[in-house]
Amino acid sequence: MTDATYTCFPLFQRFQDAWKPFLPTIHSHRFDKHNYIINHGDPANHVWLIVTGWVSLLRHTPNGKQVTVGLCTNGDIFGKAALLTQASYPYTGEVLQNETEVIAIPAKTLRQLSQENAEFSNFLMETMNKRMDRVQLKLEQMSSLTAAQRLGCFLLQLCQQQGETSQVSMPIDKHVIASYLGMKPETLSRSFQQLKPLGIQVKQSTITVPDVGKLVEYVCGSCSESGLCDMESDAITAAKE
Amino acid sequence: MTDATYTCFPLFQRFQDAWKPFLPTIHSHRFDKHNYIINHGDPANHVWLIVTGWVSLLRHTPNGKQVTVGLCTNGDIFGKAALLTQASYPYTGEVLQNETEVIAIPAKTLRQLSQENAEFSNFLMETMNKRMDRVQLKLEQMSSLTAAQRLGCFLLQLCQQQGETSQVSMPIDKHVIASYLGMKPETLSRSFQQLKPLGIQVKQSTITVPDVGKLVEYVCGSCSESGLCDMESDAITAAKE
Repeated sequence: MTDATYTCFPLFQRFQDAWKPFLPTIHSHRFDKHNYIINHGDPANHVWLIVTGWVSLLRHTPNGKQVTVGLCTNGDIFGKAALLTQASYPYTGEVLQNETEVIAIPAKTLRQLSQENAEFSNFLMETMNKRMDRVQLKLEQMSSLTAAQRLGCFLLQLCQQQGETSQVSMPIDKHVIASYLGMKPETLSRSFQQLKPLGIQVKQSTITVPDVGKLVEYVCGSCSESGLCDMESDAITAAKE
Repeated sequence: MTDATYTCFPLFQRFQDAWKPFLPTIHSHRFDKHNYIINHGDPANHVWLIVTGWVSLLRHTPNGKQVTVGLCTNGDIFGKAALLTQASYPYTGEVLQNETEVIAIPAKTLRQLSQENAEFSNFLMETMNKRMDRVQLKLEQMSSLTAAQRLGCFLLQLCQQQGETSQVSMPIDKHVIASYLGMKPETLSRSFQQLKPLGIQVKQSTITVPDVGKLVEYVCGSCSESGLCDMESDAITAAKE
């Protein structure tokens, strides 16, 4: 990997010198919709960073149900199990959009860098911890928020990730979003209806959020992370600008 | 800390020599029901290990709802945020049972030990990852399992933790269990009713599980962790003994 554009990702940004000797081990790949990047149960030899596109993380139950445990887009990292020795991937990674570009970072490289550089090791630990807090919060929101509020929280997250306050792009099938949010497709449709009074509108894969402040008010008052959440504070700051 | 009984916990077991110089920094405390061990937002200076008793991990929403994000008992660790520098506790820890005994391990001690001992550092990383997988699975189960199956999974977990196959002790108020399992108290009562055909009976704080194999069959066929789950395999092994 030599392309300077990658350095915009936090994983590389603060550690550019430390990464230099390892760049030849890192490669970028392009996948089209419905391709699998990793398979549940395979040896976890790489950690994956999405440059552009969408990937869903899936698991299957013995009685044939498919569960979406993650939805990743630009800048997201998946396959972190590879940080542990002899781990296997705990999910399948399916590409949701054509021309999705991902970077494969060998687990060996990350482990070596982590051993050589205490600051980088702390960074990885913090990243894992943040991810853990997010999952824990999502679990909690299953009982503290309504379905429409959970959808609202997901839209706030997209606003933050895409650096947009008025329009976000979500080129994903509705049933995948519903599965990720832990609701039935018909509940997702009803939830979008409930967000209409806030001015939120869906046109194909583009969602208009005309007043982020109103959405924050609708969602965050019911969430125990309120006052501590990046998404909430970023949305409010952006709305004021 | 000098008591040899602590060495039965995995955190100390494999690293007894490495722990020796640090034992004077570790202290044990006893708390009664309704006491708070840690408060949400306080600086996270210690990691806590439960020797005996029960502790619930709580958060509050701005609109006054209380959410139980964790239920910890013998051998469980909480307050892992303390592993990161300048972190604060992401929840309040409330004692659920009189004479609950916990060990307070200074964050500084853990960080120092972790820097000196790469094997211990890996152990911590693995522990965090396992916890992460558990939370992720619990989130997924909110949509893949029914309420009664989620209760059944929790009972299997208690069977495993308490090393029992026929009777488990759960001296916790029903509304705390319901909150932890993300359901209403009336749904919990209905779920216990649904488990009756499997022979499961509740008498005060004791729950009889006469046939763990039947419970595994009822729960695990709907879970994507089936075939990889410790609780499932331990229960089957114990039932065969």
